Amino acid sequence: MNPPKTDAHRHHDPATQGFASDNYAGGHPEVMAALALANGGHQVAYGGDEYTDHLQTIIRSHFGPTAEAFPVFNGTGANVVALQAVTDRWGAVICAESAHIHVDEGGAPERMGGLKLLTVPTPDGKLTPELIDQQAYGWDDEHRAMPQVVSITQSTELGTLYTPDEIRAICEHAHGHGMTVHLDGSRISNAAASLDVPMRTFTNAVGVDILSLGGTKNGALFGEAVVVLNQDAVRHMKHLRKLSMQLHSKMRFISVQLEALFAKDLWLRNARHANEMAQRLAEGARAVDGVEILYPVQANGVFARLPHDVSERLMKKYRFYFWDEAAGDVRWMCAFDTREEDVDSFVAALKEETAR
Amino acid sequence: MNPPKTDAHRHHDPATQGFASDNYAGGHPEVMAALALANGGHQVAYGGDEYTDHLQTIIRSHFGPTAEAFPVFNGTGANVVALQAVTDRWGAVICAESAHIHVDEGGAPERMGGLKLLTVPTPDGKLTPELIDQQAYGWDDEHRAMPQVVSITQSTELGTLYTPDEIRAICEHAHGHGMTVHLDGSRISNAAASLDVPMRTFTNAVGVDILSLGGTKNGALFGEAVVVLNQDAVRHMKHLRKLSMQLHSKMRFISVQLEALFAKDLWLRNARHANEMAQRLAEGARAVDGVEILYPVQANGVFARLPHDVSERLMKKYRFYFWDEAAGDVRWMCAFDTREEDVDSFVAALKEETAR
Amino acid sequence: MNPPKTDAHRHHDPATQGFASDNYAGGHPEVMAALALANGGHQVAYGGDEYTDHLQTIIRSHFGPTAEAFPVFNGTGANVVALQAVTDRWGAVICAESAHIHVDEGGAPERMGGLKLLTVPTPDGKLTPELIDQQAYGWDDEHRAMPQVVSITQSTELGTLYTPDEIRAICEHAHGHGMTVHLDGSRISNAAASLDVPMRTFTNAVGVDILSLGGTKNGALFGEAVVVLNQDAVRHMKHLRKLSMQLHSKMRFISVQLEALFAKDLWLRNARHANEMAQRLAEGARAVDGVEILYPVQANGVFARLPHDVSERLMKKYRFYFWDEAAGDVRWMCAFDTREEDVDSFVAALKEETAR
Amino acid sequence: MNPPKTDAHRHHDPATQGFASDNYAGGHPEVMAALALANGGHQVAYGGDEYTDHLQTIIRSHFGPTAEAFPVFNGTGANVVALQAVTDRWGAVICAESAHIHVDEGGAPERMGGLKLLTVPTPDGKLTPELIDQQAYGWDDEHRAMPQVVSITQSTELGTLYTPDEIRAICEHAHGHGMTVHLDGSRISNAAASLDVPMRTFTNAVGVDILSLGGTKNGALFGEAVVVLNQDAVRHMKHLRKLSMQLHSKMRFISVQLEALFAKDLWLRNARHANEMAQRLAEGARAVDGVEILYPVQANGVFARLPHDVSERLMKKYRFYFWDEAAGDVRWMCAFDTREEDVDSFVAALKEETAR
Repeated sequence: MNPPKTDAHRHHDPATQGFASDNYAGGHPEVMAALALANGGHQVAYGGDEYTDHLQTIIRSHFGPTAEAFPVFNGTGANVVALQAVTDRWGAVICAESAHIHVDEGGAPERMGGLKLLTVPTPDGKLTPELIDQQAYGWDDEHRAMPQVVSITQSTELGTLYTPDEIRAICEHAHGHGMTVHLDGSRISNAAASLDVPMRTFTNAVGVDILSLGGTKNGALFGEAVVVLNQDAVRHMKHLRKLSMQLHSKMRFISVQLEALFAKDLWLRNARHANEMAQRLAEGARAVDGVEILYPVQANGVFARLPHDVSERLMKKYRFYFWDEAAGDVRWMCAFDTREEDVDSFVAALKEETAR
Repeated sequence: MNPPKTDAHRHHDPATQGFASDNYAGGHPEVMAALALANGGHQVAYGGDEYTDHLQTIIRSHFGPTAEAFPVFNGTGANVVALQAVTDRWGAVICAESAHIHVDEGGAPERMGGLKLLTVPTPDGKLTPELIDQQAYGWDDEHRAMPQVVSITQSTELGTLYTPDEIRAICEHAHGHGMTVHLDGSRISNAAASLDVPMRTFTNAVGVDILSLGGTKNGALFGEAVVVLNQDAVRHMKHLRKLSMQLHSKMRFISVQLEALFAKDLWLRNARHANEMAQRLAEGARAVDGVEILYPVQANGVFARLPHDVSERLMKKYRFYFWDEAAGDVRWMCAFDTREEDVDSFVAALKEETAR
Repeated sequence: MNPPKTDAHRHHDPATQGFASDNYAGGHPEVMAALALANGGHQVAYGGDEYTDHLQTIIRSHFGPTAEAFPVFNGTGANVVALQAVTDRWGAVICAESAHIHVDEGGAPERMGGLKLLTVPTPDGKLTPELIDQQAYGWDDEHRAMPQVVSITQSTELGTLYTPDEIRAICEHAHGHGMTVHLDGSRISNAAASLDVPMRTFTNAVGVDILSLGGTKNGALFGEAVVVLNQDAVRHMKHLRKLSMQLHSKMRFISVQLEALFAKDLWLRNARHANEMAQRLAEGARAVDGVEILYPVQANGVFARLPHDVSERLMKKYRFYFWDEAAGDVRWMCAFDTREEDVDSFVAALKEETAR
Repeated sequence: MNPPKTDAHRHHDPATQGFASDNYAGGHPEVMAALALANGGHQVAYGGDEYTDHLQTIIRSHFGPTAEAFPVFNGTGANVVALQAVTDRWGAVICAESAHIHVDEGGAPERMGGLKLLTVPTPDGKLTPELIDQQAYGWDDEHRAMPQVVSITQSTELGTLYTPDEIRAICEHAHGHGMTVHLDGSRISNAAASLDVPMRTFTNAVGVDILSLGGTKNGALFGEAVVVLNQDAVRHMKHLRKLSMQLHSKMRFISVQLEALFAKDLWLRNARHANEMAQRLAEGARAVDGVEILYPVQANGVFARLPHDVSERLMKKYRFYFWDEAAGDVRWMCAFDTREEDVDSFVAALKEETAR
C-alpha cells in the first residue's frame, strides 16, 4: 500500500510488541481492508445497512437459525446491554469474584444497568453449580436482589477454560432455578480455538442464552456484538442498546469488521496464533528458575509469579501489568500479532533478569 | 488501491447517495488512510497511546491551552458523559424541546445519567436567556431538580445557528445563575464553516464550559470527543467516561480519526462542502412550486414542507425522513460526500413529483 | 386525654391554621387512635402483620376482588414504585406538564426510576386522548423512549377533576396503543367526594391499571399505598417496593392508618369537608374586587390571581405559596381540619388587604 | 386511655412476643404520646416545622455543634441517602460482606444510588484497617469504581460491637486514603448502651463523617435520620433526600418521635433493656446442651447454632429466622418490649425441645 494521502503523521513504531494486553494490538490487515470495502456511498444508519443484514447470516451460521447479533461498541457495553436484557429491575447477576463485570468495568453494571452483582470466590475464575449455589437462593425474598442470570466468562479472566460439559451443567443448573446464562465472550475465539470446537458447541448447544461476542481483542479496531441465542429470554434489544449509548450510527463499520473476522476463519486463525504464542511463552517461562506459572494456560493469557524486582526490571523493557502486586503475580497476554521472536526475546530477557 | 485481500464481499453500491442523514455517509478517504497509519504494532490501551496524546495538542490548538479531549464512541455517549460531568446527582439540564438529548437518545440521559431535562419550546431550536428563564429558577427548592447546566446545540437540530454573541449571552446568563454551559457539537464543524470563524470563537471564547465534539457526521467512521474547556467545572472525567461505557480500549483508532479531521483542515473542507450542498438544495427546492423551506438554511440540513404524496413518491427514489409527518415536514441532510449532481437530480425529481 | 407521660414538650400552637398545603395539617384523631390500637406486642415485620392483611380486604371492598394494596411511605414513593411496575427499562411516561411527578418530585422518577417523562401542556392539568397523542407515537423507534404508560392525577394539581367518562376515554385510548394507565391519587378522596361516586367508578371501573392511593393529605400522619388494579400489568411489586426504599418494617402502622381512613367513611368525611371549605373560600374570594379565581374549584384547592402586593401582605398573616409568582397566581389549599371560621377570617383579611 | 373512637378493630393480641426481629415490636408508649403532642393545627411541611427545628438542638446535644439531622423514613433510605452524600457518581463503598446494605436492601444502593459495593469477608461483621485494605486501592484506576467511603455498622448485623478505638483506627485509615466513614447506626442505641458511652464517643469524636441514626428499632413507629457529622463532606443533603423519595411532608411526626427517644434517655432505657434481655437469653441458651452461641453477645442479638429439628419445632411456638439454614444457625433478637418472662419461657421451650 502506498503511503496514505493524509496529513496525519505516524506517531508510533508499528513494530513495537509487548505482553501487556491483547488490547494493545491494532486491527488485523484483513479487517482494515474490510473497512475500506464497506466505505463509500450511503447506507442506512443505525443498523439498516447491508453489512449488518449480512452479519445476521454469518452469526446464524455460527450459532444456529434463531441467533441474532446486535453490534455494539465495546465489551463493557456488550455486557451491560446483555445483562439488562435478561434481568428485571429487581434482578441480580451471579458471577465469579474475578469477573470482568465486577472488577474492571468501573461500576458500569451497577450504575448504568442498575444491576446488583452477587459474587463468588473461585480458585480459577470458573463457576460451578456448587459455587453458584452460594448465591442462588432467596428468589422470593424482596430483601435480596433476585438472582436472575448467571454470567460466566469464556475464556476466563485467568486464562482458563470451561469444557462444554461444564457449561452445560451450569446452564442446566441455572435454568432449573429459572435463571438465564450469559457468557462474556470477550475472548470466545481463544476458547473455541483452544477447545477445537465451534463456538456454538459451548454456547447455545449447551444452553447459553445470551452472549457478548468479542471482536476487539480478536483483531477488530473496535466492535463487539450482543448475540441473542434464546429469543424467548429477551425483548426490545434494540431499545436497550440505544438507551445504553451503544448504538452506532454508521453501524456498517462494526458489522463489516465482524464479517471479516467471522465470515471465514480469520477469528480462528487469530485466536489459534495467540494461544500458541501463550503456550510458547508459558513453556519458556516455566523453564526459568524462580518463575511459577499459576493457572493452566488454556487460552492467550499466562499468569506467573516471580520475584517483584525481576518484574520491575523486566517492565522497563516490556510493558505488562501486575495482577496481584503483593503476591508478585503478573499477567502476560499474547495477541493475534505476537510473533515467535517477540516471545523468545521476552523469555530470554526474563531469564536474564531472573538470573541477576 | 488494489482489491483488498479479504474474504469479505462488498454488499453495497458505493455510488449510492441520499439525503436522509449525514450518518448515512461513510468515512472520508483521508480518515480511512489515517486508520491504516495508526495500525500495526502495540500501543498502550485505554488512551495511553501516542495518538491520543497527540490529539491533545491538536485540541489545544483549536480550543486553547487548557482544553482537554476525552475521545468517546458516539454522540449520545459524548452528551451523557459531558452532562454528568457538570451536574451533581441532584442536577438538571435546561435544553430546547427539540434537543437531541431530549428527543433522540432513547432516554439515555435520564436512565444512564440520572439527569432530569427541563425543556423549553423554541421557534427555531435556539435557546435565549429569556427562554432559559422559563426553567432557570428554584435552585434552593428541593422539590425541583436543580438546574445546573444549559445545553445548547450548534448547529441546531433544525439546521439553524447561534451567533457567537448569542452564545455569549447564554453563557453569561447561565454563569450568572451559577450554571455551566454544554454545547452539543455533533455538527460543530458545519457551524464553524457557516459562520466562517474558528470553533473557539463560539465556544470557550464566549464561555462554553464543555463540548461534545462531533467526528462521525463530519467524516469519521466512528468517534467523538468530550472536550473540557473549563477545567474548574469538572472532575474525574476519565472515571465518568469508563463507567458510562464509552472508554475505547484501542483508543488510538478514535484519536487518529479526530487527528485526520482536525489537525489540518479536513473538518472544514467537509463541513463547507456539506453546507454548500444544503444551500444548493435549498435554492433548488425553493424554486419548486408547492415546496416551502421552513428554517434559515445555515448548516447542512434543509427542512421543507411539501404535499405528503409528493414526499412519499420521492421517498421511493431517495431515502429521507418525515420530520413532522402530520404537517408534511421533511428533513434533507447533506454530507461531506454529497455531490452537486446528487443535489441536482434530487431537485429535478422533486420538481417532477410536485408537478404531477 | 390526660397530658402525655413524655418528656417531650409541645412546640407549636395546635390551633394554628393556614392555606398553604393540605400537608400542613396533622393527622385526624381517629387515625391517631388507630395507631394506638395497632400498637403493643409483636407483629410480623415488612407486611406480614394482621393489619396489612386486613387492609387487603378493605381495599378489595373499594376496588374489587383483584385489587391489591402495597403500603408505602409517601406519594413520591408511591408514584415511582407504581410507574416502575408498569414500564420496562426502555419505557416512558406520558403526563401533563403540570404533573407532580414532573414538577415536584426532585427528579425522583428519572433518577430513581430511570423513567423518561413525556410531557404535554394542558389548559387545566387534564390530559385528553388528543393531548396524549402529542406524545403517543414511535413505539418501534429506539431513538425514542417508548411510551408505555399514561399518568393522570385525580384531583389534578390545579384542583380540577376528570369525569369518569373522561378517564374511560383516556384508558381506552391508552390501552388501544398497548399502554397502561396510572392514576396519581394523592387526592383521590377529594375527587370521589366531589364527584360523589365511589373511587372505583373512576379507576378500575373505567380501566385504570394502577393507582397511587393517598393517605397523608387525607388525614394520615404518613402513609400511602400503591394499589394494583390490573394484576396482569405488573410483576414482583414487593421487590420493586423494597428496592425503591419504600418498604416499612413496622408496616402495621401504615396499614392501620389506611384502615382507619378507608374502612368506613373517614376518608370521605375528611375529603368532603376539605372540598366544602374550598368552595366557601372560592366563593368568598370571588366576591373580592381584584381577585380572580383561575380554575373550576372542584376539589380542595383554590387558585387565584391577585395583585402581588396584596398576596405579600396577606402572607404575613397566613402562610401560602405563589403558584406562578410572575403572574401573581397563588394556591390556597383546604384540609380536613380547616374550619369555617378559618376561611371566613382569611377572606376577611383578603378583602381588607385588597381594599387598601 | 378510653377505647379509641375509631371504627378500626384491633386485629392482634398486644401481648404477643417473639424473638424474630426488633422490627416486630411496635412503638414505645412515650413515642406514641409524643405523636399526639405534635398533632393538631398546621405546621410548615417538609421540615419547616417546630419539631424538626427542635430536633436539631437535640442532635447537637448528642453529636456536637456542627451536627445536623435529616429525618427520613427508614433505614434503607437513610443508608442510601447518606452514602450518596459522600460519593461521587464514580464512587464505591467498602463494607463488610455481612453489611445490611449488601445483603438486605434489595439492591437499593446499586439501583437507586448507583453505588458499587466493595465487600470484604469478616469473621464477626467488623471491618479493620487491614480488612479495608483488601479493597482500598486503585483510586486513579478508572476501570475500578473508586473507593470513597467505608461503611461500618454499629452494633453489627452479627450483634457485635466496635470499640471507640477500633472505629478511630478505621476512620484514621479511611481519612488517610481520602475516604470518608459512614456508620450505619440502625442499632446505635444498643451499641452506646452496651459500651456505656455517649453516641458521640464512637462517632464524631473518633472521626465518623456521616451517620444513619436508627429510630425504628429503638421504639419509634417509623423514622430514622441521616446525621451529618462532618459538614465538609457533604452538600445539598435536602435535595438528595427528596430525590431519594425520603422526604416526609408531615415531618413533624418523624422529628417528634426522635425527640421522644433522644431528648432525654428513652433511647438508652430501651436499648439497655433490649441488651439485658439478650444477655439473659444468651446465658439461658448457653446452659442448654446442644446449643452453641456463635458470636460475643454485645448488643440485642443472639446468634446460636442448634439442631435443625429443634429450631423447626421451636419456630412453631416462637417466630424467628434461620440465619444460615444449612449450618443450623439462627438469630434471636430482643426488643425494648421483650420481658424477662418472655425470655425465660423461650429458654424453657428451647430446653424442652432440645431434650426431646
